[in-house]
Amino acid sequence: MTRAEIIENIRKKNSYLCIGLDTDLDKIPKHLLRSEDPVFEFNRQIIDATRDLCVAYKPNMAFYEAYGVEGWKSLVKTDSYLGSDHFKIADAKRGDIGNTSERYARAFFDQMSFDAITVAPYMGEDSVKPFLYKPGKWVVVLAHTSNPGSQDFQLLESDGKPLYASVIKKTCEWADPESLMFVVGATHADRIGAIRQLAPDHFFLVPGVGAQGGSLEAVSKQGMTRDCGLLVNASRSILYASAGEDFAEAARKEALALQQEMQKYMELYM
Amino acid sequence: MTRAEIIENIRKKNSYLCIGLDTDLDKIPKHLLRSEDPVFEFNRQIIDATRDLCVAYKPNMAFYEAYGVEGWKSLVKTDSYLGSDHFKIADAKRGDIGNTSERYARAFFDQMSFDAITVAPYMGEDSVKPFLYKPGKWVVVLAHTSNPGSQDFQLLESDGKPLYASVIKKTCEWADPESLMFVVGATHADRIGAIRQLAPDHFFLVPGVGAQGGSLEAVSKQGMTRDCGLLVNASRSILYASAGEDFAEAARKEALALQQEMQKYMELYM
Repeated sequence: MTRAEIIENIRKKNSYLCIGLDTDLDKIPKHLLRSEDPVFEFNRQIIDATRDLCVAYKPNMAFYEAYGVEGWKSLVKTDSYLGSDHFKIADAKRGDIGNTSERYARAFFDQMSFDAITVAPYMGEDSVKPFLYKPGKWVVVLAHTSNPGSQDFQLLESDGKPLYASVIKKTCEWADPESLMFVVGATHADRIGAIRQLAPDHFFLVPGVGAQGGSLEAVSKQGMTRDCGLLVNASRSILYASAGEDFAEAARKEALALQQEMQKYMELYM
Repeated sequence: MTRAEIIENIRKKNSYLCIGLDTDLDKIPKHLLRSEDPVFEFNRQIIDATRDLCVAYKPNMAFYEAYGVEGWKSLVKTDSYLGSDHFKIADAKRGDIGNTSERYARAFFDQMSFDAITVAPYMGEDSVKPFLYKPGKWVVVLAHTSNPGSQDFQLLESDGKPLYASVIKKTCEWADPESLMFVVGATHADRIGAIRQLAPDHFFLVPGVGAQGGSLEAVSKQGMTRDCGLLVNASRSILYASAGEDFAEAARKEALALQQEMQKYMELYM
């Protein structure tokens, strides 16, 4: 999916919502456990209930790998069920030497049909570039993540700038805003304005709204550009809005509330 | 597997060789492609030919994920075939927020029976600690990797030390040498002595000997401790020593040459 198509979808839907498919058998409604593939069945109903409200879906690989071969099958089915109307992000946080990153690219872009993959920058250029071999395929590089451990190394200063700023600066030399996004956690809303100056045209994938406590308003105010430039992710707050048979309906309600709030910020800040 | 057991195996076999199972259908001998599961069949023959010469095996996840569900099946079979005599490292380079890292731990330590997983440190403490929930299970944290891109961020200086040194220092606060190792590339042999001073008792997993050009002698001389403290990995140079029907025999010959060289360094430097 191209940058222009992402922006078109955002404008059409008045939404920059990404729904994280962190599907957890311990949390999904009990009645689904009787179905043949409970992970896929849950995803299918969540997708049907929310597809008009969001522009992206982001399955988190760990939740599928945790179920072994069966989990991988559920992932493949989910990717296929999603089709091509949404921006599909494999939240995999991969990153390895060149010949290995090529394999991961093959797994997510060829074996499956994801548009983007999240990548950890620690191993540098040859761990990132192999994902950029096809137009319309994206790398989403971790810059400043939403978790408490983001303080441990990402803030280390070198030449007067924190590591995450060095990552953004360097990575921008490798790819342009047509194929590179950055992960910037909503829990660092106070820094998003400054981070936006480092990468004025790149999309940010923003986790940390919802269960992790980040503010959608602060993120939107600080980070939005005239092309929107944001994909804000929510996972648990939508997926597990209800543990009952009405889970899909409850998920839609949560997603709708976020979409309506987003529409307001698009009118204000875009 | 405990640290004492690893050391015992090293002494018994006079070897600190780790064989990387980066199994690639484009490179394995053509006659194997007719078997039901060529990836597993190749691994099985490589393992049978080398198991007395090495103390560890390290399948690289990317090479399995690239083949989708079938690849994951081959991985599970390989893990199971290896049994418990070797230290088994899932070279996955994972690392995510706490609840996600827990899932990866489940995938590799519970669904399969790996002893260790490689982890990227960029996301900090809560991305590393969830892997340390069981005695005998290990985290192998990327410190200074073997690839060209290791220059991009790992050498950025903060408070007078490069990022990889900050990673080692901080990570040592989270885990002791009974459950934490570091990845240190053989291509930085000139720095291994200094890195050893930062972590005198931790094992180093050392890739980059062989196809990537690192020197086993330099690594051993600079990095060895009285407990050995090294697992030196070779992948392509062993796996693809021959593309013919004699591939397993050729792999054994390569592994044997490395083991014999290692025996010499153990006598000299341990």
